[in-house]
Order: sequence, then structure tokens, then C-alpha cells
Amino acid sequence: MAKPPRTEEGWYALHDFRTVDWDAWRAAPEREREAAVEEGVAYLEEHERVVDAEEGASAVFSVLGHKADLMIVHFRPTLDALSAAERRFESTALAEFTDQPTSYVSVTEVSDYVSDSYFDSEVSETPREGGEAADDGEEETDEGIRRYIEGKLKPDIPDTEYVSFYPMSRKREAEQNWYTLEYEERSDLLSAHGEIGREYAGKIKQVIASSVGLDDYEWGVTLFGGDPADIKDIVYEMRFDEASAEYGEFGPFYVGRRFPPTDLGAYLDG
Amino acid sequence: MAKPPRTEEGWYALHDFRTVDWDAWRAAPEREREAAVEEGVAYLEEHERVVDAEEGASAVFSVLGHKADLMIVHFRPTLDALSAAERRFESTALAEFTDQPTSYVSVTEVSDYVSDSYFDSEVSETPREGGEAADDGEEETDEGIRRYIEGKLKPDIPDTEYVSFYPMSRKREAEQNWYTLEYEERSDLLSAHGEIGREYAGKIKQVIASSVGLDDYEWGVTLFGGDPADIKDIVYEMRFDEASAEYGEFGPFYVGRRFPPTDLGAYLDG
Amino acid sequence: MAKPPRTEEGWYALHDFRTVDWDAWRAAPEREREAAVEEGVAYLEEHERVVDAEEGASAVFSVLGHKADLMIVHFRPTLDALSAAERRFESTALAEFTDQPTSYVSVTEVSDYVSDSYFDSEVSETPREGGEAADDGEEETDEGIRRYIEGKLKPDIPDTEYVSFYPMSRKREAEQNWYTLEYEERSDLLSAHGEIGREYAGKIKQVIASSVGLDDYEWGVTLFGGDPADIKDIVYEMRFDEASAEYGEFGPFYVGRRFPPTDLGAYLDG
Amino acid sequence: MAKPPRTEEGWYALHDFRTVDWDAWRAAPEREREAAVEEGVAYLEEHERVVDAEEGASAVFSVLGHKADLMIVHFRPTLDALSAAERRFESTALAEFTDQPTSYVSVTEVSDYVSDSYFDSEVSETPREGGEAADDGEEETDEGIRRYIEGKLKPDIPDTEYVSFYPMSRKREAEQNWYTLEYEERSDLLSAHGEIGREYAGKIKQVIASSVGLDDYEWGVTLFGGDPADIKDIVYEMRFDEASAEYGEFGPFYVGRRFPPTDLGAYLDG
Amino acid sequence: MAKPPRTEEGWYALHDFRTVDWDAWRAAPEREREAAVEEGVAYLEEHERVVDAEEGASAVFSVLGHKADLMIVHFRPTLDALSAAERRFESTALAEFTDQPTSYVSVTEVSDYVSDSYFDSEVSETPREGGEAADDGEEETDEGIRRYIEGKLKPDIPDTEYVSFYPMSRKREAEQNWYTLEYEERSDLLSAHGEIGREYAGKIKQVIASSVGLDDYEWGVTLFGGDPADIKDIVYEMRFDEASAEYGEFGPFYVGRRFPPTDLGAYLDG
Repeated sequence: MAKPPRTEEGWYALHDFRTVDWDAWRAAPEREREAAVEEGVAYLEEHERVVDAEEGASAVFSVLGHKADLMIVHFRPTLDALSAAERRFESTALAEFTDQPTSYVSVTEVSDYVSDSYFDSEVSETPREGGEAADDGEEETDEGIRRYIEGKLKPDIPDTEYVSFYPMSRKREAEQNWYTLEYEERSDLLSAHGEIGREYAGKIKQVIASSVGLDDYEWGVTLFGGDPADIKDIVYEMRFDEASAEYGEFGPFYVGRRFPPTDLGAYLDG
Repeated sequence: MAKPPRTEEGWYALHDFRTVDWDAWRAAPEREREAAVEEGVAYLEEHERVVDAEEGASAVFSVLGHKADLMIVHFRPTLDALSAAERRFESTALAEFTDQPTSYVSVTEVSDYVSDSYFDSEVSETPREGGEAADDGEEETDEGIRRYIEGKLKPDIPDTEYVSFYPMSRKREAEQNWYTLEYEERSDLLSAHGEIGREYAGKIKQVIASSVGLDDYEWGVTLFGGDPADIKDIVYEMRFDEASAEYGEFGPFYVGRRFPPTDLGAYLDG
Repeated sequence: MAKPPRTEEGWYALHDFRTVDWDAWRAAPEREREAAVEEGVAYLEEHERVVDAEEGASAVFSVLGHKADLMIVHFRPTLDALSAAERRFESTALAEFTDQPTSYVSVTEVSDYVSDSYFDSEVSETPREGGEAADDGEEETDEGIRRYIEGKLKPDIPDTEYVSFYPMSRKREAEQNWYTLEYEERSDLLSAHGEIGREYAGKIKQVIASSVGLDDYEWGVTLFGGDPADIKDIVYEMRFDEASAEYGEFGPFYVGRRFPPTDLGAYLDG
Repeated sequence: MAKPPRTEEGWYALHDFRTVDWDAWRAAPEREREAAVEEGVAYLEEHERVVDAEEGASAVFSVLGHKADLMIVHFRPTLDALSAAERRFESTALAEFTDQPTSYVSVTEVSDYVSDSYFDSEVSETPREGGEAADDGEEETDEGIRRYIEGKLKPDIPDTEYVSFYPMSRKREAEQNWYTLEYEERSDLLSAHGEIGREYAGKIKQVIASSVGLDDYEWGVTLFGGDPADIKDIVYEMRFDEASAEYGEFGPFYVGRRFPPTDLGAYLDG
Repeated sequence: MAKPPRTEEGWYALHDFRTVDWDAWRAAPEREREAAVEEGVAYLEEHERVVDAEEGASAVFSVLGHKADLMIVHFRPTLDALSAAERRFESTALAEFTDQPTSYVSVTEVSDYVSDSYFDSEVSETPREGGEAADDGEEETDEGIRRYIEGKLKPDIPDTEYVSFYPMSRKREAEQNWYTLEYEERSDLLSAHGEIGREYAGKIKQVIASSVGLDDYEWGVTLFGGDPADIKDIVYEMRFDEASAEYGEFGPFYVGRRFPPTDLGAYLDG
């Protein structure tokens, strides 16, 4: 058996997709539409302020095409908080005008492919608990990595930017089997993969969350960028990278743009 | 032809998934909602107490995402009892607010990969029926295995824990064909697979049920755990194990949490 | 081109699946429900008595899970009689409470893999028509086979037993191609496959019907048995057999139990 | 690049499938049902008489099972005429009781695999246009082929016979790739395939229409026959032929029977 | 890792498919139908005049078969303009009679497979910005290519012609993996592919748009032609070309015909 990576988990994620029943929306009296917008904005603002948990992040996005009209993304420390956020939406007057055609459940994750040393110190931390800080140069390095990883596990959601969400898995075919590769080979492939990501630093922000055991694919990927052409470019460039070219299996793609909750009414009125 | 394992069956299982029609729920008069909750709680309590059969177990879970809102799991000694439980639900006032988007039928099963000696004694038991108990040390071992297997065939459902359910099959591709492997090879692979399960003892409880001839995949797997990250971890770790890496074929995953029937009203009210 | 088998066809089969609209059922006035049950029972009894054709067989089964609630199976000498039975159901008051989520069309078939001699005599029969019976020992053998094949082509439906229905095809992949195997190899494989069937004689009755050119898979298989664990066992054991392990492609599985038409009301009332 | 065949196109084809809303049909006042039948019969008779185009053919078929209740087939010289026929149906009172669950768009096609000489003369015809007829024996041969091909491109629809429709493609897998075979190999394979068709002359009539660029598979195949067992037999026999065994990819199958428009009312009343 | 091509993007594209609810259309009072046509025509005319953006193009097409009745295609410089166009449609009275069964999001793209020199000059342009024009012969060539590429990135939509739209990807199978081919091999394959396109110059116009990261396949292809048989022919011929034969993966195909907005009423009235 090939050695699995060590992983650390951060926030749980719910990508909650909603279609709007435009016929019902057009037919509704203005008073009802106003109430729906009001309750919808209140819901979104509360959840963006994360009033339902100690920490986390939420955002709403418009989505292009028939697959959905809205994507509400929640990051929370527990699955229970996600469940509460999903159900709370159903109690708003806005929910009456929406259906939930799809959704995705995952948990942000970093693995030791990224930083062996981080995980080694994690492991070695337990005996050092309460002990003094080491005073050598390694600590600074650790601190940088720790902040980097913290950003992966507890991601910010960038303002007013374009988004692409897609689930993906790694292949387990006879001649393209990620899960029978040696740890070192997987690590090298992901390191090369990461290089491409770094080329897009400042242009594309990635949130990677594992959905193994939680949803139908193995990961959910959320990309944020100021220019949708950059989203196209990074996904296309990565497709030539061996990790994707040989082992990637991609689900549906959803593309949209974040908007502030107060723009909900304008969005719904077209 | 490769030798099939000997198997023993226990309780039949129905995983009954339900979506809630939230629009109808919001629109219903309080009196109707109260009646629905009352009848729903009564149904769930009766079935958790297994008043419809001599033995068995039932539980209700909230489910995250669009695939379902509730999962009701019934274990019963007969398919008939499952059918009765399914139909009985439809006669409650709660059913009016739900649809059944999916379901899964299976029967708990142990195979002689797990314990050759158990099956050998099973087979040899028939002639010994009514005979005296053997008085050597082997008996204690047998008793331990017998209790272990009994737990597999007639599983308890843990309280207030997270759950992951998924159906799965073994591949029959040209170069990844579980069903043409020799019995010994399958046995070794499953033994290694079981090792991982044992690492999670106390954290993850697994219920494995065969659905060969009963439903679309070959097994239904139900995992219970106090921390959903453990569920993610065990499924991820197992994926690197040859039995899964080369031969596993996985269906949709459903994740949720058990709640006591009396919390149904609170759940529905968000 | 590999030599195709010679085949003989018997009755055409329609597996007509129905879901019950339980919301409408609960909401209907008792008078309407009574009329629906009455017309439903009358339809089922008439068709079980085969009043619409010179010969054939029909039966109704409850089905577990979300895929269907009822399966009505009709065997008739012509496709026209199946079409009439399907449309006749739609004119009953019961139909108002049902939808037809799926169905399967096929025709019972035996092929000369089973009995070369039967097919040889079939072919040689035409010139002998009206001629005298041969008086040697071969005739008796022929008579046994003839009765066996008649039972395959014009099957009885066992009373009050469990049923499993599934459609299946044979693979045509590069390295797993049933249709490029030599006739003798296919014949040997099916002979071994048949051995397993014979082990379950008295426990499992199989009806095999071809759907090549008629429906989406190549065969429809209906298994009847007094114990659903036997159904699971035979399908599982056969899966290790080369004919299935290498060449079988299986569709969805439906499991249920036959009931007498007069129990329809009790079934619908849960 | 392997040499593509030369092709000639004839009539465009629309296979328009309709399900009947039996609940609405039962519930409708007799006057409405009569109007629906009257307009339905008028629509079908007009289209069978091809009053909407200079040439073509139309027919209506009952379909078994849940996939459809009616299949209306239109052959017309232009896509526009098909579009008009499809939309005209929607303006009948019958349409109110039907949905269109599926459909298929294609164009009848012959390719030079069938007759190299026909295509060679086609190509050489342009310079000879208006010229005198050649007076050698080749002409008669050409005339026979020309009539044969005309029958393929502008097909008659046989009366009151059974029909099987299915879409299909040719595989493009690594080891089963029709499109990288040499022209001669494809031609030989199709010639052998055609042999089987000729064995069924007088029993089965085939209409082959290309849907490359027009619909989801590459061809639509419509088989007509007086005995549905012949339909089963020809498709089964062909499946062993290398062209199908190695390269065929089949979509859903629909089976039914032609009826005269005046029988519509009887069909709908079950 | 194989070298990815350099790409340049032009307009974003939304293929917005709509089915008409013919039952509602027939049932609507004439006044409502007139208002729907009026608002529909106004919407289509405004968008064809591109009043919502500085540049772009829009057109409406009738679509054959069950997959859709209308396809509205929008090309715009931004995703936001597409989103606005999609939502604006929902505010028309026409939208009330339509559903959106599917859609496709992409962005027109040329890659340096097509013209290395164009991309080289693009790259070298930045330092030359504001500099004088070179006065050698290369400039004219560049100008021709530049106009050609401009036509690809900002496509005109031909009048009153037939259209075929389909999404496609390149395979990443073990033995058919586009993304592990060397750049030069891909370039050669696409050059041969382009040859076929050039044979159809004047008959078929192609618009290629990338949907990597934006929608479920990797490209959306829109073909326009005066004769639908040419559409069939070019797609069929290309299928024998190695780029398609070995590496093409095709989604659903939609076929239809452009009509001027003022014909909307006539189209809807059948």
C-alpha cells in the first residue's frame, strides 16, 4: 500500500447553489418581492458577518447559465454550523423563490506534500505543549509556513471577484492510478502543479477542500480572480501538467461573480 | 472460476432518504406543521423502539446539501418489515411534506475472509446441533469472534454521531478485476484493508451490508463517528489501500448527523 | 465473425413499474380510494387470469425503495397484448394515483448453448411434420428437454415469493468482448454459469428474456425465491463466474415481493 | 488520416416521441377528448399525405413502456419542413395531452462503401449532364443501384408493422477505433455487415440516417418488420459481426407498432 | 510537462437554450401572447443591436427536437454583460412561457498553434508600443493574420443560416492523451484539422470558444452553414482526422436555424 499523506483540516465548506423561480418572481406582488429581498439581504449579511459561529466566512455569487442563479458559500468550523446555515436559509421569504439544484460539502485541507516540516513539527508539538519556544532560525520559517497554511485552512473570500467552482477526483484506472503512485512521486507531481499556481500569485486565489467521504468527488476547488480569462488560463495550463493530464477527473464547472448582499435586489430585478 | 467467499447474513437494511418541501412547510398553517411533527416523532420513536419487529434498529439523521434533508435508517430481520416501515411512513402527516429522492436496500453480511474458523465451525455446527459444548480453549476464541460477528450482523446505531453513507462495488475491468482474483489474494487485500479499520477503532464504526441482487451497487457502507474529519480520514487512507485503489468503485456520498426524534420539530423549523 | 447462437422465443414480457403518489392517496376521499382499489384489483385479477389472451401470465409485486412501489409483470404471446395491458391499466381509477418511472420490454428466449440437440431436432422437424414419431430412446430425452425449454419460454410466476429484476448486457470492450469469443467458448462459459443455477434448484427460479433490439440492455433477468438471501447469494456467486466476472454488465436492480391482487388495498393503506 | 467515405444525403428525419398525460386524458370532458382526437387524426393524416412539402413520408407508431407512448416519424427534403411539422403538432388540441420526452434528428445517407461505382458515376455525371445515355451494359447495373439507393435516401414507411428505433455511434477507443481503420477495412466490415441484412430481406427493412453534427449519436437506425422476433434476431446476429462487436456503441432502443391515424382514438382509450 | 499553447481571448459567449411551454402558450389569451411576442422581439432586437455593451453580437435560432425550442447566442466583451443579458431575458413577458433546460458559457480563443508569428509579435509588441511601424513586407502578413484572428475573437453571426452547436473536450486516457502530446505534435494535428476547415471555406463558418474553467467541456463549437448537409459533412470528415478520431470527446449536438427577431411571433404560432 502506497503511503497516504498526513493532512490537517480547517473549516468545513458548503457550496449552496440556488436557482431562482423567475416566473414566480415576476408574478409576485411588489410587497412580497420586497420582503424576500429584505430577508435575503439580512440572511446574507448576518452570515457574511458570521453571527452564527465563532469564526468562518460566507459570500454570495451570481452564477451564469442554467445550472444555478446564486451560489452561497459558507466556511464554518463545524458541519453543524453549515447545516444550520442551510436550514436557516429555508426559513427566509427569499427561499420561497428558489430551489436548490445542487450543492457541495467539503473541508479545507492541507497535506504534508506541501510542507513536510510543518507536519513534522505538528507531530512533535504534542510533547512540547506548554514548553518554551525554540530560539533558532527554523522558527521563523515555521511561522511563515504556519501563516500560509492557516490561510489555506481558514480562507478569506476576496471581494467582488469572479469565481469558478468545480469538484474533482484523482483517477484510479489501470494505467492512470494516482493512489498506487509512491508518496514521493505524488509529492513531486503536486510540487510541479503548485509551481503553476505560484505563477498566478496575485491573480488567482485557490481554495482546496477535501470531500472524501463527504461528497461525490474527492475535492472541491474554488478559484477566485479579478479576470475570468485568468481562471480559464490557469485551469488550461494545469491541464497539461502531469497531475491533471494523467490523473485529474473533473466534475461540472460553475462560473460567477461575487456581489455584496445589498445588491441582491438589483440582481433579482435584472 | 475463482472461489467465492462463504457469507452469513444478518438484518436487512433500508436507507430511506427524504427531502423536505420547504415551500410547503413554510406555507402550512401551524396546526398542520404541529400535526406533522407529532406524527413524525411518533413514527420515529416507534421505529427506534422497534415496535414493528422482534428485533432491529432504526435512527433518523439530518443530511447536508441538496441530495436529501433526512435519512431514516432501518435494520430489520426481514425485507417485509422494511417494506412495512417504508409504507407506514407514507401514512404520516409528515410524509406530506417530504419526497423520497433516493434509497438503498441491503443486508448486513460477514464473509469468511474475516474469519475462516467461524465459518468452519458454522458449517460443522449442524451435525453438532444439540451436542455438548467442546471444553477446550478454542471455544473462547470462537465466542469472541461470534460476538464480533453478531455485532456486524445486528448492528447498534451509535447516538448523536456523524454519519457517512455510500454504496460501492468492486471493479470488473480487464486489468482491475476483483472477481477473477484468487480467494487468497482477495482475503489478503481485505485483511490489509481491515487493518486500517482497526486503527480507527473507537473513532469510527462501520456497518457493511451487501446489496448484490438487491440494489444498484454491491455494498452499502455506513460509517459513524464523533468527528467528521475522522470519516474523511479513514475513507482517504483506505483509498490508498490496494483493495480500494485498484478495485473500489464508489457511488454518491451522503453526510449527516443523528438526532433524537424529539428534535424533529426544531430541525424542521431551522 | 463469431457464430451467433440459434434461439427460440416464447412469450413477450413487460415489467411495468409504478410509483404511488402517496400525497394524492392520503388526500383522496375514501370513496375515491375504494374505487381505485376496486378497479386496481379487477385489473390485476383479470390479467392474472389472462382474460386478454389465449395464454400468458401476470403478477403484481411490491417493490422496496424509491425506484418504484409496484411492479406488474405481464407475459403474453404478442407485443400487442403487452401494449393493450399497459394501456388498459391507464384507464383504471388506480392509475390516477400512479406514475410509471421505468419499464422493461423483452421476450423469453432459449439458445442452443443450452441444448444443441433440441435445436437440431427443431430444424429437422419441419420436413418431418406429420410424420411418425421415432421409436428410439432419443425421443424421451428430447421430451425432457422440450418440457424444460417450454418452461423457460412460457414461465409460471411463483406465488408469494421475493423477486429481483435487473437488465444486463455482455461487454464488448477490447479485452473483454463476449461477441468475439468463439461459439464453443461462450457455450462452455454459459454451461459453467448454468451449474451455479442448478445448485439453487428448488430455491431460485430464473426467467431470462432477451431485449436485444427491444430495450436498452440485452437481457432482462427475473429471479424468484422464497428467501431474499438466496437471491443475494446466487447473484454474488455468479459474479465470480467468468461469464459474469469478465463479460457481465448490470443495470439497476429492483427487489420486491409478490402479493395477491386482493391485498392491494392493504398494501396501499400501509 | 484515414480516408472518409463519400456520402449522398436524402431526406431529413425527425423521430418525434410523445408521452400521453393519462391523468389529464382520463380527467378531460369527452368533448375535449374528441376534439383532441379529431385534431390529432387530421394532423397525422395531413402529414402522412405530406401536404406540407413536395415529397416525404410520415407515420405514427404506438411505443411500449415508459419511454414514450407515441413516435411520429417525419421524412422531409428539408430541416425546415421538419421544424414546421414539429411546431404544427404543438398547435393541435392533442398536444395539450402530450409531452415530448425525447426526439432524434438525422438525414438519410448512403456512402460509397455500398457502391463505389455509383459514386464514381455521380462524380462523373456533372460533365455528362444533358449528354446521351451510354448504350452499354453498365447502364442497367447503374439503374439497379440507382433505384436501390433512391429507396435508401427516400424511404417508404411500411404499413402496420413493428418498429425498432435506436441511435448508435462507432467507437473511438484506443484499441477499438473505427475512425482510424483504413477505408478498405471499414468497407469490408460493412460489406459483411450488409450480408446479414440481406439474409433478412423481405422480413426486415432498415432505414439508416446520419446524425453526425445533428444529434448526439452518429446514426439513427429504424428497423421495420412484421414479426418483432425478427427485429430481435437481426440485431442480435449483427452484434456478433465485427463492425458491431468491436465498434458499435448503442443508445436507447424504442419498440412499437405503426397504426393508421384513424385508430388514434382507440389507442388513447386503451 | 508538455508545453501549453499561448492563447488570446476575445468575446465571452453565452449559448442560452430555451424550451417553450406550448401548453401555456396555447392556453394564454391572445393579449398575453401578443405582449410576450412584443417584449421578446424588443429584447432580441436590442441585443442584436448590442445596446447593452460597446461591442458584441447576438442572434436567435429555432432548434429542432426536444432539447430546446430556441437558442439565443450572445457574444460580449465581459462575463458581466452576458449575465445581464441572461437576467434581462427573465424580465420579459416572453420568459414566462419558457424554461432554460441548458446553456453554455465560453470565451472565444485563438492559440499559437494557429500562428506562432502572431503571438511572437504580440509578445514583442509591448516594448515597441508607440514606436514606429516597421516598413518591411512582414507587416502586411501580420495584418492579414491580425484580421483573421480578429474575426475569430470577435465573430460575426451569419444571417438566416443553419447552426450546429456542440461542446467538446480532448481525451486524457492512458493511450489517447492529448495533454501529454508534445506541443509540436498537437500543432501538426491541429494544422491537418484546419485543412479540412479550409476545404469548407465559404460553406461553413466556425466559432471556437474555450470553456476550460467556465463550463463542463473544454470548448464550445458553433458551426454556421447555408446547407445542413455541409454541417454533417464537415463534422463527419473531421471525425476521421487524428485530432478527433483519437482525442475528441463530444457532448450533445443542437441543430437549428437563425431567424430575424420579427419572425418570433410566426415561429411561436407554428
